[in-house]
Amino acid sequence: MKTMGLEDLVLVAPQRYPSAEATAMASGADDLLSRARVVEDLEAALTGAHRVVGTSARLRSLSWPTRDARGSAEAVVAELTADAAAEVALVFGRERTGLSNREMDRCHWLLHVPTASEYASLNLAMAVQLVAYELRMAQRAAESAPPVAARPEESPAAPWEELERMFEHLEVVLERIGFLDPANPRHLMRRLRRLLLRAEPDRNEVNILRGILAAIQKEVPETDDERRATDDR
Amino acid sequence: MKTMGLEDLVLVAPQRYPSAEATAMASGADDLLSRARVVEDLEAALTGAHRVVGTSARLRSLSWPTRDARGSAEAVVAELTADAAAEVALVFGRERTGLSNREMDRCHWLLHVPTASEYASLNLAMAVQLVAYELRMAQRAAESAPPVAARPEESPAAPWEELERMFEHLEVVLERIGFLDPANPRHLMRRLRRLLLRAEPDRNEVNILRGILAAIQKEVPETDDERRATDDR
Repeated sequence: MKTMGLEDLVLVAPQRYPSAEATAMASGADDLLSRARVVEDLEAALTGAHRVVGTSARLRSLSWPTRDARGSAEAVVAELTADAAAEVALVFGRERTGLSNREMDRCHWLLHVPTASEYASLNLAMAVQLVAYELRMAQRAAESAPPVAARPEESPAAPWEELERMFEHLEVVLERIGFLDPANPRHLMRRLRRLLLRAEPDRNEVNILRGILAAIQKEVPETDDERRATDDR
Repeated sequence: MKTMGLEDLVLVAPQRYPSAEATAMASGADDLLSRARVVEDLEAALTGAHRVVGTSARLRSLSWPTRDARGSAEAVVAELTADAAAEVALVFGRERTGLSNREMDRCHWLLHVPTASEYASLNLAMAVQLVAYELRMAQRAAESAPPVAARPEESPAAPWEELERMFEHLEVVLERIGFLDPANPRHLMRRLRRLLLRAEPDRNEVNILRGILAAIQKEVPETDDERRATDDR
């Protein structure tokens, strides 16, 4: 819960609370556990809730209205966005037996986590993590929080003309080492352009590549053709 | 893993395996655990992988390319949809310390699970569950709507070991032309890895790059140091 920014935990008739074992396992999130509200039955837990979403390991044969975890999270966030004072309760059942039919009757809909049909039994902790994660993702989308940058920029993107100069430099060097035959270029430069442009090099990276090209030029003497071409200018 | 339909588990240098405790906890998924492939290092685990995705608890200061869990899952599924023979490795680090920089250098990109900034530490098990869930969700979406290929493939993605050989080759050549000083490498190889892995080179492209490296080697004589190192072998 805490990794996903949730903090309001309600425990219904826990077997042991507080529990030294649970506190130890909660590690840095023990504050959330110690602030938990403890109640005697589900009805008390739900007091004040405007929307109650149950969770179910499997799709029920009886037709409770059901949404998957993603759809549920989107619906919950939409509701909270529309009315900041609304309270939504997500109800998780017991580790082995889940929610009773009577408890499910209290829910506006059932949330279902899609799992492999061969092995559908999610642990309770895993189910809570997945639902909390979907709530956070839906919340971020609602805030239209910018997604994680595909690539954090250390250095600004190289402007077009720097890339062009790099490709010209590359072409000169490839000719000098005898890899590019100007009489038969076989789309080599096009292929290398495609590869490097796909990586969207930044300025630092362009500078590194040009440094490598200059180091090769220092080691490999100019060819006669090249000298002639330079002289002609 | 099994709840989300994944089954190919590789354990790198586990402290204990098989472990009676782990088998008991795996419950109905112990078949998956008992079929796990156990290897000595990450390199062995990645042999044959066309795409390597690392997982990172936090956004790194050094700019590894990063995608969130959902974007990563979509990219992975798009790739597997385009080429059924492709193999994608998702790499998870140690419970406390995650992946080392050296391990992250092997990855095409890092997968990041968006968490609350105040408490960002997901358990390893939770991270695996979330990523497996996103893969399953992306797979379901892809089955109902065939995605447009992210990049029209002329040539299959280069397997991991070909990329590694290319980087080794590049390092040798950079030393030979005097651009890389082994005594003061200044993250040069890491920067070049990042640039080239970002482009996700296919086999043709790796062959072109290695051709260029071989052409440079033909033109630039071996240094004394290099000759000595070769003689020592």
